Amino acid sequence: MTHLSGLPRQVVIREVGLRDGLQILPRTVPTAAKLEWIRDAYDAGQREMELGSFVPAHLLPQLADTDKLLAYAKTLPGLKASVLVPNLKGAERAMECEADSMLLPLSASHAHSLANLRKTPDQVIEIIARIRDARDAQGSHTRIEVGISTAFGCTLQGRVEPAEVVRLVKAAIDAGAEAIGLADTVGYADPTMVRSLFEAVLPIAGDKLNCGHFHDTRGLGMANVYAALQAGISRFDACLAGIGGCPHAPGASGNVATEDLAYMLASMNIETGQDFNALLALRRKIARWLDGEPLHGALARAGLPKTMLQERAE
Amino acid sequence: MTHLSGLPRQVVIREVGLRDGLQILPRTVPTAAKLEWIRDAYDAGQREMELGSFVPAHLLPQLADTDKLLAYAKTLPGLKASVLVPNLKGAERAMECEADSMLLPLSASHAHSLANLRKTPDQVIEIIARIRDARDAQGSHTRIEVGISTAFGCTLQGRVEPAEVVRLVKAAIDAGAEAIGLADTVGYADPTMVRSLFEAVLPIAGDKLNCGHFHDTRGLGMANVYAALQAGISRFDACLAGIGGCPHAPGASGNVATEDLAYMLASMNIETGQDFNALLALRRKIARWLDGEPLHGALARAGLPKTMLQERAE
Repeated sequence: MTHLSGLPRQVVIREVGLRDGLQILPRTVPTAAKLEWIRDAYDAGQREMELGSFVPAHLLPQLADTDKLLAYAKTLPGLKASVLVPNLKGAERAMECEADSMLLPLSASHAHSLANLRKTPDQVIEIIARIRDARDAQGSHTRIEVGISTAFGCTLQGRVEPAEVVRLVKAAIDAGAEAIGLADTVGYADPTMVRSLFEAVLPIAGDKLNCGHFHDTRGLGMANVYAALQAGISRFDACLAGIGGCPHAPGASGNVATEDLAYMLASMNIETGQDFNALLALRRKIARWLDGEPLHGALARAGLPKTMLQERAE
Repeated sequence: MTHLSGLPRQVVIREVGLRDGLQILPRTVPTAAKLEWIRDAYDAGQREMELGSFVPAHLLPQLADTDKLLAYAKTLPGLKASVLVPNLKGAERAMECEADSMLLPLSASHAHSLANLRKTPDQVIEIIARIRDARDAQGSHTRIEVGISTAFGCTLQGRVEPAEVVRLVKAAIDAGAEAIGLADTVGYADPTMVRSLFEAVLPIAGDKLNCGHFHDTRGLGMANVYAALQAGISRFDACLAGIGGCPHAPGASGNVATEDLAYMLASMNIETGQDFNALLALRRKIARWLDGEPLHGALARAGLPKTMLQERAE
């Protein structure tokens, strides 16, 4: 369903703060706080959340309680929980925990792929195929989602060729990916690049291309979302308070802020099901749990415009 | 000239920091610093600047040296200097100083117009006509530019009807406006509103509609610029370091940051003539001159992406 403007009428915002937001922080948020986060986010209307990552706990102690979060998420009706998995072992755990979706990061940058997973992109494709085989052999319902990271450039390698992104998307789908997202992991994208790359991938991926993941590192997060909306994308990752900054850019903002994205979409008459007051109340809790960490996002400072408050009063 | 993307190939960024940026600050930047600002901005490639406002000095002591700045600007070849004028008396001064352009703010919000100028929008239209008559009688070359403020909503009145904006643009042109800009004075616009309002005004104003003025109060400044670019607009106001916040929203960001806008456009292969290193060096000076004031903008924190540095090295 689209508006007269050609934009989607409804958009899903997947909250990824519990994974992408927390993984680079030097602290561990207690499990009890994370459970409260999930409940409050659910109460605020969020129906998709990335809860953590199944990597060895010594690598990411911040995310070591991912199984507990998944177990809780499964008690909340209609909540789709995804987890990041870097390999078959992680995928096995995701399937054991009956995650709705397991997200495999596939770096379009060769250099980033080697640095992050010690594997080439094509070796990651082979892993996807093995995960698909294991999943199908078990009759698991966990969906295989592939996030093409560094799709718009990379801090190590610099330029990433769109043709390489297209090639990898095709290979990932052939290997078993049921959903594809394009991620601007390091905040290099601009709206022209976004529109162009999504439109290049759409003929190959079709409806499987269903997620945009934008970091606001250089202030273009919302413009990039708008460009992806124009390409027909209707699902976006975001972090409350814009956490998830890049370790290579101290103080730089992270993912697009959930509350700002929800505000922009609401202003554009695109439904997201999010309750602003509840989001901002959860944000205040997150500010306590992450005391001292830089938070981002404009709505929390500026508040809703009077025009939107008028609409609600009517 | 447009790209294949349909976007303009070249964009003018008018630096408005010396007017919109400084006018709400509780301090006065010394004239010598402002002259250095103008020179450095010029050296960074800026060719349009709004330098101040011809209002009574007791109302805006921060801008009381506007005549001196104009005199200096006229020594810099190719620099187009504009000044804000609220009335005929201000326009007389702008013409005496041979400003290239005088900008009349015309609030689309009736409430804002009364609060800001103690006149209704239609009374301001009458002033524009008197200014045009005076200008033509003198044979002055100072261009009459009208900025429709609160075009996307108002903190006092809330909603502003697009039909009222269209009516006022038509009346302003009939009264003598040679250039029209649409301003999101309080940061209420979203990309759909921007695209829609610019497209509604274009049939009436044609090429005269040549400026977008967006505040980043709620984080949508760049997305709104992108929407206006898609409507064919190729001239934007901006403030270095994103100064110019709203007095009603403490801590909220101001105008779109010049350096971020220049970065987005450069990344999109749209020419602006701006030199990033020079802009960022001037930003550091501004940070000293405005010591303690909140600055905004993402590029200064995150730096240029490696992809753009690669291009420059080639």
